[in-house]
Amino acid sequence: MQDVISYIKDNQQNYIEELKDFLRIPSISTLPENKDDINRCANFVADKLRNAGMSRVEVIQTEGHPLVYSEWLGAPGKPTVLVYGHYDVQPVDPIELWENQPFDPVVKDGKIFARGATDDKGQMYMHIKSIEAFFKTEGSLPLNVKFIIEGEEEIGSESLESFINNNTDLLKCDTVLVSDTALYDEGIPTLTYGLRGLSYLEVEVTGPNRDLHSGTFGGGVGNPVNILAGMIAKLHDKNGKITIPHFYDDVLKLTKKERDNFKSLKFSDKKFAKELGVAALEGESGFTTLERLWARPTLDCNGIIGGFTGKGAKTVIASKASAKVSMRLVPNQDPKKISKLFTKYFKSLAPKSVKVQVTDLHGALPALTPLDNPATVAASVAMEKAFDKKIVYMREGGSVPIVTVFSKKLKAPVVLMGLGLNTENLHSPNEHFNLTHFQLGIMSSAYFIKEFSTK
Amino acid sequence: MQDVISYIKDNQQNYIEELKDFLRIPSISTLPENKDDINRCANFVADKLRNAGMSRVEVIQTEGHPLVYSEWLGAPGKPTVLVYGHYDVQPVDPIELWENQPFDPVVKDGKIFARGATDDKGQMYMHIKSIEAFFKTEGSLPLNVKFIIEGEEEIGSESLESFINNNTDLLKCDTVLVSDTALYDEGIPTLTYGLRGLSYLEVEVTGPNRDLHSGTFGGGVGNPVNILAGMIAKLHDKNGKITIPHFYDDVLKLTKKERDNFKSLKFSDKKFAKELGVAALEGESGFTTLERLWARPTLDCNGIIGGFTGKGAKTVIASKASAKVSMRLVPNQDPKKISKLFTKYFKSLAPKSVKVQVTDLHGALPALTPLDNPATVAASVAMEKAFDKKIVYMREGGSVPIVTVFSKKLKAPVVLMGLGLNTENLHSPNEHFNLTHFQLGIMSSAYFIKEFSTK
Repeated sequence: MQDVISYIKDNQQNYIEELKDFLRIPSISTLPENKDDINRCANFVADKLRNAGMSRVEVIQTEGHPLVYSEWLGAPGKPTVLVYGHYDVQPVDPIELWENQPFDPVVKDGKIFARGATDDKGQMYMHIKSIEAFFKTEGSLPLNVKFIIEGEEEIGSESLESFINNNTDLLKCDTVLVSDTALYDEGIPTLTYGLRGLSYLEVEVTGPNRDLHSGTFGGGVGNPVNILAGMIAKLHDKNGKITIPHFYDDVLKLTKKERDNFKSLKFSDKKFAKELGVAALEGESGFTTLERLWARPTLDCNGIIGGFTGKGAKTVIASKASAKVSMRLVPNQDPKKISKLFTKYFKSLAPKSVKVQVTDLHGALPALTPLDNPATVAASVAMEKAFDKKIVYMREGGSVPIVTVFSKKLKAPVVLMGLGLNTENLHSPNEHFNLTHFQLGIMSSAYFIKEFSTK
Repeated sequence: MQDVISYIKDNQQNYIEELKDFLRIPSISTLPENKDDINRCANFVADKLRNAGMSRVEVIQTEGHPLVYSEWLGAPGKPTVLVYGHYDVQPVDPIELWENQPFDPVVKDGKIFARGATDDKGQMYMHIKSIEAFFKTEGSLPLNVKFIIEGEEEIGSESLESFINNNTDLLKCDTVLVSDTALYDEGIPTLTYGLRGLSYLEVEVTGPNRDLHSGTFGGGVGNPVNILAGMIAKLHDKNGKITIPHFYDDVLKLTKKERDNFKSLKFSDKKFAKELGVAALEGESGFTTLERLWARPTLDCNGIIGGFTGKGAKTVIASKASAKVSMRLVPNQDPKKISKLFTKYFKSLAPKSVKVQVTDLHGALPALTPLDNPATVAASVAMEKAFDKKIVYMREGGSVPIVTVFSKKLKAPVVLMGLGLNTENLHSPNEHFNLTHFQLGIMSSAYFIKEFSTK
């Protein structure tokens, strides 16, 4: 193992140069004009896997963007790790806020700046380099490895989801290793073991059959904007609890150990509030901020609109008003069930003077990987060795919908070995990736392969 | 008088064609891009007054949109009537709901469809045509007439208000005649003796210093859209009463006679609800619908906006959300006092997690004219003659802010001889004006000139 780690350390500069080549390909999945770049990027990944020593590498065409599948199954009897990542990136707008060209990577202060640096090219590439280090030094891997790398993560992973559904045997594995999340803080080895799910709906409240003059009609007819506001207000009680009946029925309570773990992170509410520019935080009573962000379900209006919204004054009672409402879900809440509960309750809040329409836009299951499963234990040991620091366990407030598909379909625990930072401007101008974390990530990946091979 | 009335009846078709020309000018006062149209419209009105036979006609520039002043003072010793109206109109959005282009008038089923048809071009134009009928048939008027026509009614009448304050001698009169309100119902001669006032504000609630990902941050930070909704909800109690402390302190109670008058109108809640397309009406408990509409103060959100309002889903917590809130006021509430009470109370509803800004956009005093004054009596007789039906007395839920300024500054009673209908979609798509009422209005105006000349 000493040789593998030394090899990784010795090759750091090469890795950065290779990563730059990877980052130069503008593989924006949502823009049709980047279709060729997407294909070029899939081939780039395939070439790198081939050069690293993988025995089988395929670029698989789909109805959307190509998948890259690869495997090395030269360790019969040993466990199999499936590495997942994505080579597609977000658009670059607003381009004028970038300090360098987004596809012309620049290294500054130990960070590499480019679109996709942290999300997810830099993180995904760590695993290609770790297996290469084994092949170059030991000639083989201590376990079996598969890769499935997609080009549609930023646009919904549709092709991958259907590929997983149709290829559970091909993708069969003992754990799925993903690096597409964040460290708790700079230099802190972190494993994310939970993700929140999502239930996203649109509601529309319709009153009178046309917009009305608020002088002539005001007082005599229900106002859809006021009524919608009132209905939204009723979705929380004064303690910040969501009032939908049975909403919390399936919520898995935090264990004492989890709460202690979170507490040990010494999260500063004050610093958090200051960074957000608010005088006070707000949330469900009885829980700390980290508990609220990571392990408690929420209900947020993501948008609202109704009536006159231009400059100045218009004395109108709008015929209708609408809002986007999403709920972040936690294990074991089910988005379909929650959407139904929301719809029924929301409709029940409406006075007779309005009609209500609720549309379920989309959902995602929450995910939780037990901390005591062998893959998580191996990942913990691996990251502690690489960082030479004690691991911390966190959950993440956002959703990575494909994670749940992997764990459900392949019945394998997912290890979220994220090496990014939430401050690295993913989806924003000046995205970057900390190059120290890049190296530590390659080492963590290598240690993991070693550790998990004996499980 | 027979000649005047015959002339009016004979010229109905010409009046409609002239009105069409008037309605073709998109004199939207709130939009800077319509500034030229506004000027064109003022000149159109001036030309029509000149052609009608008025001796002095002036387009007066102001800091805002021009006023049109006109006079004919050829009846010394006789009373003077000041006719007020406005040539500006509301914006046309939502444009897609119009069945014809809003500035391309269409006559259908005895109605003329265009923005401004009933509010107020059609109604104001009646008086120009009635004095023209006198000049064309009798060569003179039986009393003195002044016109003051403005282009800022829909945006607060600021220029006119300061003009009145500085020109009380020029505008001196025995009564102010205004047609900018509605008949109680189709074909029912109606005088409106009370108007509600207005207090119109904009509120903005700001939370975090930037839009946030609702997955990563949801649950940990106050959401300005939810908070704004909650604050709006708190402005009414469950009986539909406004909760602002001292809000009702100055409200003049309805007399027994007024409540009886209103009852005698046999207003049908069922018909009203059906016409509006709602399953139920809604309002302050303890009052009938007419009392709520005419003589009780209200609070309505005229618009609300915040966060993502496009198609589909975006998981965002908006940095800010805002709403337009207006209150209709009744005698003797004062808009300045009410705006202050609102601002203080609204700010008190905000949790610490947000900042609140309240902007007072504009206000209007409520108005009440005694029923036994000579101008009202003359107007009653005039309308009964034109319609050949008994007059009814009503109040109006809307505001004509300038009415109070007239009555206060000129110390003259205001006659509200409205010929519109509340079902004519003023401020909404497909605004229209009943052409039978248009003709009856010209006749009512002529009879009034005759009746009032002997007072």
